Amino acid sequence: MLTETIPAYLTALDSTMRALLGEIMQHDEPGFGVMLRYALGWSDDNDVPYQHPTGKRLRPILLLLTAGERWPEALPAAAAVEFLHNFSLIHDDVQDDSPTRHSRPTVWKVWGIPNAINAGDALFTASYAALASLSRTLPAEQVVGLWHIFNATNLELTRGQHLDMRFEHQTGVPVEAYISMIKGKTAALLSACARMGALIGGSPAAALPHYAAFGLNIGIAFQIRDDILGIWGDPAVTGKSAATDIISRKKSFPVLYGLSHSSDLAGLYARAQFSAEDVRQAVALLDAVQAKDYSRQQETIYYERAMNALHVAAPSAAVADGLRAFVDLLFQRSA
Amino acid sequence: MLTETIPAYLTALDSTMRALLGEIMQHDEPGFGVMLRYALGWSDDNDVPYQHPTGKRLRPILLLLTAGERWPEALPAAAAVEFLHNFSLIHDDVQDDSPTRHSRPTVWKVWGIPNAINAGDALFTASYAALASLSRTLPAEQVVGLWHIFNATNLELTRGQHLDMRFEHQTGVPVEAYISMIKGKTAALLSACARMGALIGGSPAAALPHYAAFGLNIGIAFQIRDDILGIWGDPAVTGKSAATDIISRKKSFPVLYGLSHSSDLAGLYARAQFSAEDVRQAVALLDAVQAKDYSRQQETIYYERAMNALHVAAPSAAVADGLRAFVDLLFQRSA
Repeated sequence: MLTETIPAYLTALDSTMRALLGEIMQHDEPGFGVMLRYALGWSDDNDVPYQHPTGKRLRPILLLLTAGERWPEALPAAAAVEFLHNFSLIHDDVQDDSPTRHSRPTVWKVWGIPNAINAGDALFTASYAALASLSRTLPAEQVVGLWHIFNATNLELTRGQHLDMRFEHQTGVPVEAYISMIKGKTAALLSACARMGALIGGSPAAALPHYAAFGLNIGIAFQIRDDILGIWGDPAVTGKSAATDIISRKKSFPVLYGLSHSSDLAGLYARAQFSAEDVRQAVALLDAVQAKDYSRQQETIYYERAMNALHVAAPSAAVADGLRAFVDLLFQRSA
Repeated sequence: MLTETIPAYLTALDSTMRALLGEIMQHDEPGFGVMLRYALGWSDDNDVPYQHPTGKRLRPILLLLTAGERWPEALPAAAAVEFLHNFSLIHDDVQDDSPTRHSRPTVWKVWGIPNAINAGDALFTASYAALASLSRTLPAEQVVGLWHIFNATNLELTRGQHLDMRFEHQTGVPVEAYISMIKGKTAALLSACARMGALIGGSPAAALPHYAAFGLNIGIAFQIRDDILGIWGDPAVTGKSAATDIISRKKSFPVLYGLSHSSDLAGLYARAQFSAEDVRQAVALLDAVQAKDYSRQQETIYYERAMNALHVAAPSAAVADGLRAFVDLLFQRSA
């Protein structure tokens, strides 16, 4: 079923995003809008149009699926969440000192940090303007309701980003604190997508918190699954080297669990650099404390919370089918 | 008259800003909200509350004056523009590599660039959340109208910031391009304040563009006046050293005019550094091409446009008196 709807969504989303950004940036300046078009994968760094393979547009797809039959009306909201996601990537790449994204130099790497900050601010504003454009078709009360959701989500994003940066320099981060971080950094926006889609789709007000819980918990489960794949994923499936998150010393969910359950692992992580043997040993120590099993259990707990919330939200059969297929798609990579 | 209203505005504004930020940041984290409170002058860098003298809150005052009798209803909008202004300062200070503001280290200087970017993003979101909180008291249509104004203004701010950064590395910036830059960077937000205040104050829709033109033109005139003072201002009045903008080689309005009318001045500005004699010579060359007179003429043109627009907007006698007194206050520093 998704094999038919997703291509239709993506085509309509692309048109909507281009039309809205064109309107929003109608007073463009040399060297200004190009940074946004580049970040969105629409042009190269000389503003020559091309289509660069970027993200999977998971967030707008989730929003449109949740809106059900009214998905065409929800397109500006879908554009807004995708602009927002890309704004956060522009700033993240500065904050993380990341030189590449999607196999291209990051915005700050091409235009410098001051311009990247400003391009991010412009795309952040564009995300609000895209959402506000819904006032052309939806009642003002509904648009204001969407705005409130968007504000709370963006505050959660900055809170999650704050914790993520803070944890880098902190030893002994409890897994609960990590969950709080990914709630903000990853899950809040998925939660908002489900809630906003349901709101535009005409779901009863009482169902909206359940859609939000669905999105939030599926986001947490997805991040834990991603963290498991970062250590034990099959390189042939993930497209990354084995134990990539150990090599990069990322404090992911299984690693934080391992650090609090194995003093040997904590001792290993006190080292400045890892040899290939250290990487093997780290994985062995994680296995010894059943870090993978624990992470899978936790993934399952959040996954089931998500599916229960979806059940309680009681979407139409078509929306329920679409969302379940979306979840299957999200989790299809095997560990 | 302003001697009575402004203190009342500032007290109510401070309470509103604190109450709104407290609500918005209800899920604070260690080291997170402190950056915002510090930027707003409410605490030191250890989050110990104190009152640091910060900006003059000119933007919210303009907004509240324009709202007239309904100014108490406009307080959340006034808080929004002040949050927005402070967000832009946090990011500006990173972009300009500025180590101090209001005699304190800037946010990035205390917490580093990644945190300053994130603190700015959080305060940007807080400005939207403050504005959206008007939905508690105002009709949704009106709140959406304010949101549209806010979005367009923020895009103008990023456009102006882009031009400002671009002009630093550009020779031969025409004064018209400079005006376009300050429209975005300085005047757009003053324009929005007048328009939003008038909207909340109940002005007829047809009057709103005239309030916007009043704010825009007064902002341009004010920036040109500031640029004149940066070269010819009396140090005893401005609190800055004489010819401070020449020493810092700022491409301000009179300098850009001078550069396009004096090849000697252009030659001087090609030098890597200025001696005290170079500074004196630069001022003499500016005087030789009547750069001060030209700048004053232009200041007067925008000032008169602003006052004409205010006349056409036809505010009540009380609002007109308040706004004229505000303009007098803005321009009281003598050149």
